[in-house]
Amino acid sequence: MRMETMETYPIQIGSVTRRVPLHEPFPGVRIPLVDFLGDVEFVRAMAQELLPKLPDEVDLLMTAETSSIPLTHELASARELDYVVARKRRRPYMVDPIIQEVDSLTLGAGEVLWLDRRYVERILNKNVVLVMDVVASGGTMKALEKMVNRSGGRVVARVAGFHQGEPDLEIATVAELPQL
Amino acid sequence: MRMETMETYPIQIGSVTRRVPLHEPFPGVRIPLVDFLGDVEFVRAMAQELLPKLPDEVDLLMTAETSSIPLTHELASARELDYVVARKRRRPYMVDPIIQEVDSLTLGAGEVLWLDRRYVERILNKNVVLVMDVVASGGTMKALEKMVNRSGGRVVARVAGFHQGEPDLEIATVAELPQL
Repeated sequence: MRMETMETYPIQIGSVTRRVPLHEPFPGVRIPLVDFLGDVEFVRAMAQELLPKLPDEVDLLMTAETSSIPLTHELASARELDYVVARKRRRPYMVDPIIQEVDSLTLGAGEVLWLDRRYVERILNKNVVLVMDVVASGGTMKALEKMVNRSGGRVVARVAGFHQGEPDLEIATVAELPQL
Repeated sequence: MRMETMETYPIQIGSVTRRVPLHEPFPGVRIPLVDFLGDVEFVRAMAQELLPKLPDEVDLLMTAETSSIPLTHELASARELDYVVARKRRRPYMVDPIIQEVDSLTLGAGEVLWLDRRYVERILNKNVVLVMDVVASGGTMKALEKMVNRSGGRVVARVAGFHQGEPDLEIATVAELPQL
């Protein structure tokens, strides 16, 4: 019964279409709730669209947990690259982690990203592409970029599946998620 | 300097070998710190070992965030299946989520898994295989199984890359992570 009355919105990426539910983060603002976790076909379709946007000279991909992991994994797999995942909680095994605050309009309390120190040498002197499934203000991507810089790497491109509004940094995206 | 003095332990899966650092969760107990996040080659090697352990009659995979996601994605991709990811934090868009406590020996405070209600109909009447990268007590897998049962699905197999000790439920694994 629930799904029959729930409004959905069609999202098409390549030849794959999904009718996704709408989420209302604030009264009167509705956004399509895309879902990269668990939908292999959709993730693959998005990866195919994003692959041409990756520069040739990339050594490593980087993202933040959680929902961007499958897309980053597909891109890394297609390009035979490794990737690094910044965590949103400190993990028990982390030693001397890099801690980076996220300035975000959509999150209330300041979120923090954590990166175990052992990843720093993986980033050092590397050309890094930042990957997200959806970008809004771009706050998470800016925090990732600071982590790359602090680790001695260079961000050579930023890519995302969808953008909501206009992030104030240059990000190659495939489609816009409208506010409805 | 750090890495030269850090003890590592060799892990071989198929033809892929990784020298991983050791983590000391309690004084005198050291465990190899395997890392499925970001290592495409290692994840693929483990997926190849696990694929024969999946039954034929599987409709859906299920896991919990975060580190098990790449392995689950690879297995789902190879079998052309979807998967469901239980979350460790409530997400803002969740409506009427299924909440399941995890009984865990290794975690102090009771952890909780969250599953948005919209996934319930994806699980209903389905044959589900539970996937984890590493199992110790098996508490997370038991919590996932309760979520599947509460959603009207059936768990037909449980698979994991590594086991630590002997979980008290039947889980097909590829290798043991020793306590050193």
